[in-house]
Amino acid sequence: MANPEYNIGLLMYPGMTQLDLTGPHQVFAMMPNTRVHLLWKTIDAVTSSEQMTILPTTTFDDCPALDVLCVPGGSGQVEMMGDAEVLKFLQQQEQTAKYITSVCTGSLILAAAGLLQGYRAACHWAFRDQLPMLGVEVGNERVVIDRNRITGGGITAGIDFGLVIAATLCGEETAKMIQLLLEYNPAPPFNAGSPENAGDVLVQQVKKFGEEFIQASRAQTQAIALRVTAI
Amino acid sequence: MANPEYNIGLLMYPGMTQLDLTGPHQVFAMMPNTRVHLLWKTIDAVTSSEQMTILPTTTFDDCPALDVLCVPGGSGQVEMMGDAEVLKFLQQQEQTAKYITSVCTGSLILAAAGLLQGYRAACHWAFRDQLPMLGVEVGNERVVIDRNRITGGGITAGIDFGLVIAATLCGEETAKMIQLLLEYNPAPPFNAGSPENAGDVLVQQVKKFGEEFIQASRAQTQAIALRVTAI
Repeated sequence: MANPEYNIGLLMYPGMTQLDLTGPHQVFAMMPNTRVHLLWKTIDAVTSSEQMTILPTTTFDDCPALDVLCVPGGSGQVEMMGDAEVLKFLQQQEQTAKYITSVCTGSLILAAAGLLQGYRAACHWAFRDQLPMLGVEVGNERVVIDRNRITGGGITAGIDFGLVIAATLCGEETAKMIQLLLEYNPAPPFNAGSPENAGDVLVQQVKKFGEEFIQASRAQTQAIALRVTAI
Repeated sequence: MANPEYNIGLLMYPGMTQLDLTGPHQVFAMMPNTRVHLLWKTIDAVTSSEQMTILPTTTFDDCPALDVLCVPGGSGQVEMMGDAEVLKFLQQQEQTAKYITSVCTGSLILAAAGLLQGYRAACHWAFRDQLPMLGVEVGNERVVIDRNRITGGGITAGIDFGLVIAATLCGEETAKMIQLLLEYNPAPPFNAGSPENAGDVLVQQVKKFGEEFIQASRAQTQAIALRVTAI
């Protein structure tokens, strides 16, 4: 594709949650006249939290001006929130990108880069309370749209989010075609996909399971919030 | 993990649909005491239909006896249906695997290996009519369970399928925890995820879009069906 109509870039990083990246990627890859970039500092392979190793396609230096910049979440998010090279790249792309987007805890990285302050945004349910520490208003919807910030909730919300982006750029008919291609007619075997549906026992179990990541993210968020306040 | 309780193997191949692989992988990776193998002939990188390049973790030769063998779909499926090395590997694993499974058009690869004859199975909606040519009964459910064959429908069905596998191996409570971790509370922005919901105009558009792949798969399926009948 010599001259794609749309350039979409997904940030990669060690410790990303692979489905945060691969869910929207699958949708974007089905959009007509669209080139999807998997972005990292180098073209060396990047390993997700789940030990899935994926190759970047485009380095930060080689990245064209993007129509959509998308940041996935995952435990590596904590480190990325303090990574000057990553934050600078996001800030640079923000100046030209039409849409600044994220999935899951990727919104905390965008917030650390100063790109969500004064906006409403989504986040994985277990991390939502951390967004306001950075001046971001929390939206509990699965996909939150606030001007040109479009953000998805936890992990699997990336598919719903991807279809919203497809509809925004290419129109509803194309988004519906992609939904049908993906046979996206979900039928979860259980009704436990949100804290409200799952109930308190399950919520506490998941919070305990994820405690280390949740606490590390909170500490990083607090440190960044203090720095911002001190300026 | 020196001695995992469960070994799950996902076949990789050039031209796989990445979400057929990455959807269930995300679920499996959250199962306790489970090692997930990304299987291919070599450990060389494998590129999906969508130009996502992923590294295998385990070669066919190094693959342990699996609890779950899972075959994803994608346009490369046509070639895999005639790949002697792949078919032999699947047949060998079948002898010891507790569950023989697939997502999307992966069921056509299992059928080409002779592993679904006499069973009911799922497939991507646009390819379902090809299963009976190989002696497989079609199931229109999103996840079809027939004895130890568990098969998912098109692409995104891999997440529902993954949760069914998690519940089967680890119990419902664990599967629900994973669903909550994944925030799998889907909210598709449109109601076009099945041929019934999407309506005939959209169905014909998608069939036209996928015509080359659908026809190539049909030709391969017919050739294999003739060979099987001739024996």
